[in-house]
Amino acid sequence: MEGTMKVAVMNGIGKMGFEQRPIPVPKDDEVLVKLEYVGICGSDLHYYEHGRIGDYIVEPPFVLGHEPGGTIVEVGKNVKGLKAGDRVALEPGKTCGHCEFCKTGRYNLCPDVVFFATPPVDGVFQEYVAHEAGLCFKLPDNVSTMEGALIEPLAVGFHAAQQGGAHMGQVAVVTGSGCIGLVSMMALKALGVTDVYVVDIMQKRLDKALELGATGVINGKEKDAVKEIEELTNGRGCDLVIETSGSEICANQGLEMLVKDGTLVQVGYSASGTMNLNTSMICDKELTIRSVFRYRHIYPLAIKAVAEGKVDLKGIVTDIFDLDDVQNAMDSSVNNKADIVKAVIKIAD
Amino acid sequence: MEGTMKVAVMNGIGKMGFEQRPIPVPKDDEVLVKLEYVGICGSDLHYYEHGRIGDYIVEPPFVLGHEPGGTIVEVGKNVKGLKAGDRVALEPGKTCGHCEFCKTGRYNLCPDVVFFATPPVDGVFQEYVAHEAGLCFKLPDNVSTMEGALIEPLAVGFHAAQQGGAHMGQVAVVTGSGCIGLVSMMALKALGVTDVYVVDIMQKRLDKALELGATGVINGKEKDAVKEIEELTNGRGCDLVIETSGSEICANQGLEMLVKDGTLVQVGYSASGTMNLNTSMICDKELTIRSVFRYRHIYPLAIKAVAEGKVDLKGIVTDIFDLDDVQNAMDSSVNNKADIVKAVIKIAD
Amino acid sequence: MEGTMKVAVMNGIGKMGFEQRPIPVPKDDEVLVKLEYVGICGSDLHYYEHGRIGDYIVEPPFVLGHEPGGTIVEVGKNVKGLKAGDRVALEPGKTCGHCEFCKTGRYNLCPDVVFFATPPVDGVFQEYVAHEAGLCFKLPDNVSTMEGALIEPLAVGFHAAQQGGAHMGQVAVVTGSGCIGLVSMMALKALGVTDVYVVDIMQKRLDKALELGATGVINGKEKDAVKEIEELTNGRGCDLVIETSGSEICANQGLEMLVKDGTLVQVGYSASGTMNLNTSMICDKELTIRSVFRYRHIYPLAIKAVAEGKVDLKGIVTDIFDLDDVQNAMDSSVNNKADIVKAVIKIAD
Amino acid sequence: MEGTMKVAVMNGIGKMGFEQRPIPVPKDDEVLVKLEYVGICGSDLHYYEHGRIGDYIVEPPFVLGHEPGGTIVEVGKNVKGLKAGDRVALEPGKTCGHCEFCKTGRYNLCPDVVFFATPPVDGVFQEYVAHEAGLCFKLPDNVSTMEGALIEPLAVGFHAAQQGGAHMGQVAVVTGSGCIGLVSMMALKALGVTDVYVVDIMQKRLDKALELGATGVINGKEKDAVKEIEELTNGRGCDLVIETSGSEICANQGLEMLVKDGTLVQVGYSASGTMNLNTSMICDKELTIRSVFRYRHIYPLAIKAVAEGKVDLKGIVTDIFDLDDVQNAMDSSVNNKADIVKAVIKIAD
Repeated sequence: MEGTMKVAVMNGIGKMGFEQRPIPVPKDDEVLVKLEYVGICGSDLHYYEHGRIGDYIVEPPFVLGHEPGGTIVEVGKNVKGLKAGDRVALEPGKTCGHCEFCKTGRYNLCPDVVFFATPPVDGVFQEYVAHEAGLCFKLPDNVSTMEGALIEPLAVGFHAAQQGGAHMGQVAVVTGSGCIGLVSMMALKALGVTDVYVVDIMQKRLDKALELGATGVINGKEKDAVKEIEELTNGRGCDLVIETSGSEICANQGLEMLVKDGTLVQVGYSASGTMNLNTSMICDKELTIRSVFRYRHIYPLAIKAVAEGKVDLKGIVTDIFDLDDVQNAMDSSVNNKADIVKAVIKIAD
Repeated sequence: MEGTMKVAVMNGIGKMGFEQRPIPVPKDDEVLVKLEYVGICGSDLHYYEHGRIGDYIVEPPFVLGHEPGGTIVEVGKNVKGLKAGDRVALEPGKTCGHCEFCKTGRYNLCPDVVFFATPPVDGVFQEYVAHEAGLCFKLPDNVSTMEGALIEPLAVGFHAAQQGGAHMGQVAVVTGSGCIGLVSMMALKALGVTDVYVVDIMQKRLDKALELGATGVINGKEKDAVKEIEELTNGRGCDLVIETSGSEICANQGLEMLVKDGTLVQVGYSASGTMNLNTSMICDKELTIRSVFRYRHIYPLAIKAVAEGKVDLKGIVTDIFDLDDVQNAMDSSVNNKADIVKAVIKIAD
Repeated sequence: MEGTMKVAVMNGIGKMGFEQRPIPVPKDDEVLVKLEYVGICGSDLHYYEHGRIGDYIVEPPFVLGHEPGGTIVEVGKNVKGLKAGDRVALEPGKTCGHCEFCKTGRYNLCPDVVFFATPPVDGVFQEYVAHEAGLCFKLPDNVSTMEGALIEPLAVGFHAAQQGGAHMGQVAVVTGSGCIGLVSMMALKALGVTDVYVVDIMQKRLDKALELGATGVINGKEKDAVKEIEELTNGRGCDLVIETSGSEICANQGLEMLVKDGTLVQVGYSASGTMNLNTSMICDKELTIRSVFRYRHIYPLAIKAVAEGKVDLKGIVTDIFDLDDVQNAMDSSVNNKADIVKAVIKIAD
Repeated sequence: MEGTMKVAVMNGIGKMGFEQRPIPVPKDDEVLVKLEYVGICGSDLHYYEHGRIGDYIVEPPFVLGHEPGGTIVEVGKNVKGLKAGDRVALEPGKTCGHCEFCKTGRYNLCPDVVFFATPPVDGVFQEYVAHEAGLCFKLPDNVSTMEGALIEPLAVGFHAAQQGGAHMGQVAVVTGSGCIGLVSMMALKALGVTDVYVVDIMQKRLDKALELGATGVINGKEKDAVKEIEELTNGRGCDLVIETSGSEICANQGLEMLVKDGTLVQVGYSASGTMNLNTSMICDKELTIRSVFRYRHIYPLAIKAVAEGKVDLKGIVTDIFDLDDVQNAMDSSVNNKADIVKAVIKIAD
C-alpha cells in the first residue's frame, strides 16, 4: 500500500506533534496492519515526562506506544495463516531467535530484542505498522481491536501470575490497583486462583478492582493490610503476592502477609531503584521472590481468556482519546493519575 | 541404661558450666544415642554471646549444640531398622507430622518443630540423648561419627543448592567462605555443578575453599568480584549465587553477577535484619531470590555424598575440643572467627 | 454417643444384608460423624460382583462404601477447628505419617494406608463413623453433604488433571464419560483449561458431559476421535489426555491425538491388567504417560471449587437410594451401567 | 575452499561406494568443517540393512553418518565466536526457530528440522561439511575430535537422564548395555546419581559397563533382575529406569523394579513398534513413563562433562575404521553386534 500516514511524535519532554511518514512496506514474513487502538502505558508517560527510563534516552522526534491492535491490510509473500481483513493483537518485541534465551524459550530476555517505543526503536502512535507475522495474533470475532491492544498489559499480568506459580486453591494478594494490578488480579482469577484480594490507598481504584472481580479489597490508608489478610485467612497468610505498586512498604507488607514458602512477584519498579527488604523474614519463612520482565508465550492464552469472558479487558479502560488529541491524552494521563486507570488512543474504527 | 551423664550448660552470657543429669530413657519409637561429636554452630555462638536470637531467648541453664553424631546404645521397642552399635547422624528437629507443611513434605517449616538448642528446647552438648528413630540416620563404615555430626551443616548447604535448582552445566558463585559457604560449595560440586567460585575477604578462608575443591576463589578486598565473574564467564554471568555472608554488599554483587533469569539463594542473615536490594536489577534481569530455613529430606543423600568421597567433610574442621574444655571452645570460637572455620566438641571416641 | 447403628454388609457375592453394631467411640484426635450420604464407587461394585480386586479379597461380612459425607456429632478431646454440628466431607485414607512417601508429601502412596472399604478395612455404608479429624473437611454452607460425599471421586479427577499438569490455554481430551471421566472434565475446566472434549461410545453419557460443561463431545462409534481432535485443533493435536475408560483402544487413540511432548494420564484400569501401547509413537513424539492412584492434598481445593460453582457435582448424580434399599442400589448399579452414571446411598437427611 | 572431496555413499542395501563432490561453500552464518571422526549409529546400520526406518526411505546414493567431529577451516562472514582452527563437535539438526516447539525451547521437536542422514537429508561420511555456526561447539584442548564426534550419542544419554529427572541420591537402572545404555549410565553418574546398575544379557557388554563406572551390573540371563534390584535396595526399588534395549520384557521389568512414583524413560524402539505394558502396575504405583527424541540444549554440558573427566567417552569406542574402509565398517558392525559396542569412521587426523 503506497502513500503516507499520520504519525504522532514526541518532540521533547511534554511536547507531542505530528509528522507524515511513508506507509511501511511489509517484508516477506511481515504483515501490514492498519492500527485501530493503541494503549498508553506507564512507560510512555515516563518517557513523556522525563525523556528517559534508565539508560534508554528519547531522541526526538520519537514515536511512543507499544500496545497496538488493528486490522491486517497486506501480507508478505511468505506469511501463512494470516490474511488481509484479519483483526490482530500485536506482540511488540521482535527477538533474535538464536541467543541462549531465545533457544531456551525465554525470548523476553533476548538481549537483541527490538521493542516498540523503547529508544531508539519507534513505537506505534501512528496509522500503520509493518510487523513480523509471527507476532500478530488473530482475534476471535467477539474480541475487539481495542481489547486486542490491551492484550499487551494483560500479558504482563498473566506472566506475573505464572511466574508466581498461580493455581487453583491459592489465596493471592495484589498490591497496587493500577492497570497492571488490575490485569494481574484478572489473570489470577482466570488461572483458577480462588481468592484474590487487592490492596491500594485510592478507593476509586479499589472500587474498580471489585467491579472487575476481586474477591475483596483493602484500603491501606484505613486498615492494616497485613492484619486484614491474616484475618481473612484464619491466621495462615496468603500463598502469593503480586506487587505492582513499586512501594517498599507494600513489598515488605507482602512478605509479611505470605504463608511460609510463599512467593512474592515484584512487578512494580521503585522510584529509587532499590528496596530495603526484610530479608530475615524472607529466610525465616523460606520465601521466594520472583520478578517479571515483559512476558513470553502469553498472547494466545490471554486472547482466549478474553474471548471466553474470563477477563473483562474493556472494563479497565477509563478514557479513549483520538489520535489527533494525543497531546491532551498524554497531559491528562500524567496529571490525572488517580482518575485515569487506563487510557487508549483511538486511531481508526 | 540407668545412671547420670555429664551435660555442658550455658549458665549465662559467656558462661559455660556442667551438670549431672539422668541419662534419658528412650520411648518406644526412640533410640538412645551415646554422643561422640557435636559441632559448634554459629547460632550456638550467637546465643552464647548475646543470649538470644530474635524472639528465642536463652533461660539458663540451657544446653547448646544441635549437630550431633554418635552410637546407638539402646532402642525403643517399636524401632525397626536400627540397633545398638549402629553409628548415626541425628537430624535435630522433631516435627508434628500433620500440619499443612508436614503433610506436604515441607517439614522444615512445621510451626511446632522441636529443635535441639532452640530455646526452650535443650541441645546436645552432653553424653547421651534419646531421639526419634526416624531422625537417626545410620552411617556407612567409611563415615565417622565426627563426619556424622557435620551432616547437619552440610544439609544446609545441600538444601541451599537444591533451593537454587543447582545442576550440571551451571556456573555458581558462593559468597562467604565460612562453614556454610564451604559446605554449600561442596554440595554444589556434589550435585554436578561444574564451576563453583567462592568469594570472601579473608584469604585464609579462600585458601580453605580452594583446598576443598572450589573451581576458583576471589578475594573481594583485592578484586571486583562482579568483574571477575564477568570475565570468567565471557561476559555472560553466573547461573546461581548462594549468599552465605549476610552482607548487603555481597547480596547486591550477587544480583549483579547473575545471568538473566538467574537465582540468588539468601542463606546468611544480615545483622540489621534487612537489606537494601537492587530491585530494578532484579526486575530488569527477571531474577529469582530464594531462601533457606534449615533443610528437609537431605540426610540420606548428604551421608551418601560423604561416603562416596564427593564431599570432604573432615576438611572443614579446624579445631576439636573435649567436652571438658567447652568454655575454651566457645570463647576461642567467638574470639577467633577468622581462624576457626569449624570447631567440634569431642564427647567420646 | 452410646447405642447401636445400622450397618449394611456384603454377605457374599451379590448379597447385601444388615447388622446392628455399636456406634464407634471417637479417639482423642477423632470425630464421630453421623453419615448422610455415601457414594457408590465402581470399586464397590467390583467387590460386590467379583468378591475381589487383585489381591484384595472380601471376607464377609464386609462393609462397602468409601465416599462419605455427614455431620459431626462428637469430637475427641484433642480435636481443634471442628465441632459438633459441622458438616464434613471425609477423606477415606488414614496414612502412617512417617514413611518415605508420607514424609515427602505423597501420602497417597503410603504402604500402610488404612482405607475405607479396601479389605480387610470396613467401609461406611452405615449410620456413624469415627474418623481422624484431620481427614474431615468442613463444608461451606452452600455445599450439601451429598456433594460432600462426592468430593471423593472429584478428588480423583483433580488429581488426574494435576498429574497431567493441566493449565489455562491447553486443549484437553477425556476418554470415557463415566463418573471419573465427568469429574476429570469438570476438574480440568475448574483449573482453567480452556477446551475440554469428551470421548465415549454411549451418547447418553456424552449428553451428560455436555450438560456439565464439556466444550464438545465425540461419539467414538460414529466418528474417528483422532481425526476429530485433529480438526478441532487445526492439525496440532491436544496437550493432555485423561484416559478413564481402561480401554487399550482409547489409550492408543489418546497417544495419537496428542501434540508432541503431550501427556496422557492413565486413570482407568484395563480388564486384562495390560495394554499394548504404541511405544514408537511415544518416543517419536516424546510423550509422557502419567498415572493416578487415589489423590493427595485435594479436598480443600475441591470443596472450594464446588462452593464457587466451578464444578456442578450434584449434576453427576443420577440415582439416590435409601440405605434400606442398598441391595437394590447395588443390583441396579451393576445391571444398568449405561443409565446409572453415579448412584448415592442416602443414610439420613 | 575450492575443490572436491571424497564422500562415502550408500548405493543400495548393503552397498557402500564413493563419490567426489564439490567442497561445500559456507553461508554467512555457517562454518566449513574438515571432518575428522564420524560415529556409526544404530540408525545408520538400520538404513544400511533395511533401506528405511518407518517413513524415512533411503534414495541412493545417500550419505549416512550424523555424529561428526572436526576442525573449522573457514567461517562465514557473520560468524562470531568461532574461527579457523577451532576443533568442534557438530550438533546435527538445524531447526526452524519459529514454530511452537522452537519458540518454547523444545527445538528437538521442530517438525521442519533438517537432520544429517535422515532421508532425504544427506549425512556426513565425507571430508567436509558446511554447518550452521550455532550448531558447532568448540572443544576444549583436552577433548579430542573423536570424543567430539561421540558427543552426539552422549547427548541422547544426558537427555534421557534429564527427562527422567535424574539427581543425586537416586538409585537408577539402565536396561541395555549398548552404546546408548553406556552413555546413559555415564550421564547419570555425571549428573550425580549415586547408584547406577546396568542390566543386559551379554556379559561382554556388562563388563564394559563396569569398566566405564557402573555401580553394578546384572546379567539377565543368569539372574532375576527385578529381584536383584529389590535386594540391592533393601526392598525399596529404584527411582529411575532408563530403558535402552527396546525389549518389552525389559520395559516391564523396569516398571516392576521402580519404587512408587518412580519414572521409566523409554529410549529403545521395540521392533514391533508396540509394547504390551503392565498398566495396572503403572497405576497402582503411580509411575511415570517419559521418552526421548534426540536431545536439546545438551552439547555444552556434555562437552564439559567429558572435559572434566566425568564421562569416559573414549572408553565406549571398540573399533575405528578409515573412511576408505567404510564398507567393511558397516558390514562388521552389522554382523558383529555383540563385539562392536561403538565404531567410528576416521576421516582425517
